[in-house]
Amino acid sequence: MSSQYGKKIKISIFGQSHSPAIGVSIDGLSAGIKIDTDELRAFLKRRAPGQSDISTARTEDDMPEILSGLAGGVTCGAPLAIIIRNEDARSADYRELRDIPRPSHADYAAHVKYGGHQDVAGGGHFSGRLTAPLCAAGGICLQILRGLGIHVGAHVLRIGGAEDDRFDPVNISAVDFDTIRENPLSVLRREAGESMRQQILEAREKGDSVGGVVECAAVGLPAGLGDPIFDGIENRIAGIVFGIPGAKGIEFGSGFAGGERMGSENNDSFFMDGKNIKTRTNNSGGILGGITNGMPVLFRVAFKPTPSIALEQDSVSLSRGENAVLKVKGRHDPCIVPRAVPCVEAAAAITLYDAYLDR
Amino acid sequence: MSSQYGKKIKISIFGQSHSPAIGVSIDGLSAGIKIDTDELRAFLKRRAPGQSDISTARTEDDMPEILSGLAGGVTCGAPLAIIIRNEDARSADYRELRDIPRPSHADYAAHVKYGGHQDVAGGGHFSGRLTAPLCAAGGICLQILRGLGIHVGAHVLRIGGAEDDRFDPVNISAVDFDTIRENPLSVLRREAGESMRQQILEAREKGDSVGGVVECAAVGLPAGLGDPIFDGIENRIAGIVFGIPGAKGIEFGSGFAGGERMGSENNDSFFMDGKNIKTRTNNSGGILGGITNGMPVLFRVAFKPTPSIALEQDSVSLSRGENAVLKVKGRHDPCIVPRAVPCVEAAAAITLYDAYLDR
Amino acid sequence: MSSQYGKKIKISIFGQSHSPAIGVSIDGLSAGIKIDTDELRAFLKRRAPGQSDISTARTEDDMPEILSGLAGGVTCGAPLAIIIRNEDARSADYRELRDIPRPSHADYAAHVKYGGHQDVAGGGHFSGRLTAPLCAAGGICLQILRGLGIHVGAHVLRIGGAEDDRFDPVNISAVDFDTIRENPLSVLRREAGESMRQQILEAREKGDSVGGVVECAAVGLPAGLGDPIFDGIENRIAGIVFGIPGAKGIEFGSGFAGGERMGSENNDSFFMDGKNIKTRTNNSGGILGGITNGMPVLFRVAFKPTPSIALEQDSVSLSRGENAVLKVKGRHDPCIVPRAVPCVEAAAAITLYDAYLDR
Amino acid sequence: MSSQYGKKIKISIFGQSHSPAIGVSIDGLSAGIKIDTDELRAFLKRRAPGQSDISTARTEDDMPEILSGLAGGVTCGAPLAIIIRNEDARSADYRELRDIPRPSHADYAAHVKYGGHQDVAGGGHFSGRLTAPLCAAGGICLQILRGLGIHVGAHVLRIGGAEDDRFDPVNISAVDFDTIRENPLSVLRREAGESMRQQILEAREKGDSVGGVVECAAVGLPAGLGDPIFDGIENRIAGIVFGIPGAKGIEFGSGFAGGERMGSENNDSFFMDGKNIKTRTNNSGGILGGITNGMPVLFRVAFKPTPSIALEQDSVSLSRGENAVLKVKGRHDPCIVPRAVPCVEAAAAITLYDAYLDR
Repeated sequence: MSSQYGKKIKISIFGQSHSPAIGVSIDGLSAGIKIDTDELRAFLKRRAPGQSDISTARTEDDMPEILSGLAGGVTCGAPLAIIIRNEDARSADYRELRDIPRPSHADYAAHVKYGGHQDVAGGGHFSGRLTAPLCAAGGICLQILRGLGIHVGAHVLRIGGAEDDRFDPVNISAVDFDTIRENPLSVLRREAGESMRQQILEAREKGDSVGGVVECAAVGLPAGLGDPIFDGIENRIAGIVFGIPGAKGIEFGSGFAGGERMGSENNDSFFMDGKNIKTRTNNSGGILGGITNGMPVLFRVAFKPTPSIALEQDSVSLSRGENAVLKVKGRHDPCIVPRAVPCVEAAAAITLYDAYLDR
Repeated sequence: MSSQYGKKIKISIFGQSHSPAIGVSIDGLSAGIKIDTDELRAFLKRRAPGQSDISTARTEDDMPEILSGLAGGVTCGAPLAIIIRNEDARSADYRELRDIPRPSHADYAAHVKYGGHQDVAGGGHFSGRLTAPLCAAGGICLQILRGLGIHVGAHVLRIGGAEDDRFDPVNISAVDFDTIRENPLSVLRREAGESMRQQILEAREKGDSVGGVVECAAVGLPAGLGDPIFDGIENRIAGIVFGIPGAKGIEFGSGFAGGERMGSENNDSFFMDGKNIKTRTNNSGGILGGITNGMPVLFRVAFKPTPSIALEQDSVSLSRGENAVLKVKGRHDPCIVPRAVPCVEAAAAITLYDAYLDR
Repeated sequence: MSSQYGKKIKISIFGQSHSPAIGVSIDGLSAGIKIDTDELRAFLKRRAPGQSDISTARTEDDMPEILSGLAGGVTCGAPLAIIIRNEDARSADYRELRDIPRPSHADYAAHVKYGGHQDVAGGGHFSGRLTAPLCAAGGICLQILRGLGIHVGAHVLRIGGAEDDRFDPVNISAVDFDTIRENPLSVLRREAGESMRQQILEAREKGDSVGGVVECAAVGLPAGLGDPIFDGIENRIAGIVFGIPGAKGIEFGSGFAGGERMGSENNDSFFMDGKNIKTRTNNSGGILGGITNGMPVLFRVAFKPTPSIALEQDSVSLSRGENAVLKVKGRHDPCIVPRAVPCVEAAAAITLYDAYLDR
Repeated sequence: MSSQYGKKIKISIFGQSHSPAIGVSIDGLSAGIKIDTDELRAFLKRRAPGQSDISTARTEDDMPEILSGLAGGVTCGAPLAIIIRNEDARSADYRELRDIPRPSHADYAAHVKYGGHQDVAGGGHFSGRLTAPLCAAGGICLQILRGLGIHVGAHVLRIGGAEDDRFDPVNISAVDFDTIRENPLSVLRREAGESMRQQILEAREKGDSVGGVVECAAVGLPAGLGDPIFDGIENRIAGIVFGIPGAKGIEFGSGFAGGERMGSENNDSFFMDGKNIKTRTNNSGGILGGITNGMPVLFRVAFKPTPSIALEQDSVSLSRGENAVLKVKGRHDPCIVPRAVPCVEAAAAITLYDAYLDR
């Protein structure tokens, strides 16, 4: 069991990088919600490969086909299933990897787990391509949340040494999310995107890759979502975010920086804003005791540099049991962080809609 | 639903800070395992309050009573239930908090969620005291893992500005864990503990508190544990670790630092160590594609400073709907990080034993 | 994993027949509900042993102790944990059973599953005694449901050859449930109870036991509870009812008799009863497509005769691998059916409250 | 949440009767198992409509397309997803049903649950057509079980008044299952099938339908599968079997008949059969305390007569809130019991393989 998530809604992801199709079943959506398929397609496009000089050369239309769950364009209570066909798969590129695992990729761990039967082509079920169905599910949740007045947005905060502005933890607004969607590379500050682009191009030139950080926020959430202990919003968001390949860290609110502070600095004082209770700062990232407090939910996710690089690397031959040198073929992103932005939004949207239904 | 965790084993935590007892039911333990109750008590003692000048003055024996799950001192396949009585509860200290929520504590979020019916006394179900049953479950899993040759240990990496040595990601050994358990404040380097102690005492003197970071490792794990996408070891560990009050961030291996690196720096090359496949570095924290690769599992958890501080703070009166000033009474830790160390070990042990059974 | 049930509420049962205590944690109850502990005790008494000449001689007070989940007598949102101490345990009676399994009891299956480490005394975790915590959880759900205008009741429909009247499927009312609770042996028709009592006494005289059927109904349920396919009300009720030791069959509405009918006989016609939609018959047992239709939910559960009988029986010696003769000692009910009545009510109440919260 | 089942394997069913496709994702299959797609197609054919004069006139090829989960024809550890296109859908037949619910069909309950947004066409997600993906998942589990020496088979035990021979509870063998598959209507005794056929044809002639009972067995199972209380094999099988539309009762071993017996009649004595422990009778249906005891698992499922009949029936108009008369159009089976046989086999196979993996 591995590819399922959720409580009130349950998403179930399937597919491999080079299988006939990838897809997702989403069980538990409220009935009676109109789904805008054009908008869903536009959202998926933000994640799709082959769109610019800084992403993989693999091109996939990523046209989602909705197989079920709608009646007259409206959710009908039945699971909504979406598939996306894999078109531009070149499995031949991956043959060597069955024997020589790529450093820091899932190849070796999967080989042990599945006794050598894992689908090696394109990374199989471990491929970043599996974030397309995640985004399909998330894209639908984003639409539904918007109808509830809840907006989720993310931006690239850092790529290598280049850094964007941070969200203002207290005053994040849906307008910021629009700005990000207009800017190349999904940043708040256009020039930050330009520096990041340089970092990526340099990495690619060297046959290397580069990591980064995505920052995500949700506004408009009511207080009281989430549950104590193991079902807090932090647990749930982390539980889905680490399903995005390459995610290696997550922090909420002041996060790791909060670990260096005094309570008097880090505590968020309450005050009355008219009839509403708010906090003056938002070091808690909108979550206290696992439960939303009505302030923006705010978190950051660290992504490691893509492990698939063109440079020669040391590895081993599984069949011969000896050291070996690997030169990865195939088409790869020098930096997955910009394409991870909609994935993080999707993950947050799924969690928050699920918590909303479960309130 | 909130206080349950696990797949093959299911732990179910109950209790409030001032309820008659707190406890845990652990369902799914293998049958036929001898449980050493003295060792369990010793482990719980590492978390228990009232043990030194740097923790809360509340004293609790925290003597666990095993109600079921054993036959002749050996696990019998039935759920193992443990309770710990609450003895030294002074509920009167908490009356004011029903109206004036403590900044950065769960009071307000819980008030909204439970319509004012939450147990305010001592933080109720949100109290750090609920980590005692977590540690009871974890202490049992630690014993079982050790019998399988798997060792889990954690140390305080940072408190405020004071920092301990890091684990050597490749060569962590169970001997390090013994060192930590002998050193005050659970550190690798004794002097680091002394600086941390100073930071905590200073915080307490000011009526303030201070945050920190715990680093945790597991050695002896076979490769192949965990599942792809939503059931990776990272997802699962994060899913339980955020159940420890105050945890606001987690990173695996190089984590956030990896987000600033190039792939060529961050990738972990494979090599043959005799007949074993190992990696020369361990920036992956022992997990690739959600699955263990046989290297030490390594992660760090950020804890915010305790929100309960003695200093006056701004808050609101829920009944009057106006701003109010709060001065928290009750007995509180100026720093929970040292007491969080066994909690993080417990969380990791539960997850890893669960993943082991689920392999 | 074995002893947990539920979606929105999760009950987690622990204990063995002769362990220090048995108990249950109930996670997910709505906050703000007053629990009447006297009523809970009275409900548990209906299940408790040692109350008449037709049940086991083991006497247990079965006084429930609520360890958590309440604040001021009212549910506070935290898991409600209840334990019941085991007092009158005579483990010596069970020694022989470690080697010679009782026919039609769980002894042998448990021996294989747990490698001989199962708790043999009193049937361990498989004992009917574990229905006490089930009833504790169910008793609380029954109280809550009543506050919602939903009433659940069961009666003994048959013991051996003696049969009670059936519920009128369309016109069941809470008044019927009161009648049952006043009549000895939990029957609708007093004289039916007298015949049943005779059957039980005869069985006991012979050192034998006798089986029977319990019929259960719930009235006042709104239409629309339950989910299609695997989460229908039938699936859920069956999923908990087979947790009562001895249950071997369940049927909803016309059940097995419906399998001999024509559609025109078995279909329940709709009609307007004022502004309400009702059906003229209720062969569906109030459930269509897994979802309640507003008519009374109605089902019957078959219980096998208690396997522990005083007569000599053929069995095997596990240690010697040869045939053996067994004469069961210990104190046993000649018929568990009357004591199963509150268990079935409890199971139905837990399911229906869970489905109500999950609507 | 509704359409998911399982513990170690998780099946997730999607689709509506007239949606573009129906399908299933099966997560958790062991890696390295060759799937015989011809055999899978042949198994699905046993369930498919339009094959004889006694089933619906709707014709569907029901050709399964495997979208993922295989690499080189062998399971690779990733979820195996299968879809089946809906070809011969005539939605126009169903328009009236949006207003006038069919007696004893899910129409009204679904209308309430989904606020009128349910997919009415062909019964939507509640259609018997959704058993095609159940059979696809079950067909794969049947193949895998056979490789483990475990065989599952079912037959029509009764249709209306016509009855087949029962399985011999102790000596069921895989040969019986072959016999059944060769006989028309899936019976043990050919002539029983002929009487059943007569009953079905008579029902159809009258514009009526008829119910029945399916008996199912599994042989070759090791002792020790299943868990106590809520995760027993009975709970699990019932939890999936009630997902088959029309199932209204289930009994294991002697079931309801056992409720009329004495313990001395119903108990299954153990004896040594060479080195194996067996029971002389099998009134327990191979399950004790929820756990297999090594004897054949044996159960029976009651199916109500198809609610869609051609005769005029009383119903109500939801829009007008008044009584109405309904004459169902569309193409329907006069008896679903023969087509339910592979569904019951599929349900049992999924459960037993899941329990096998979870042992």
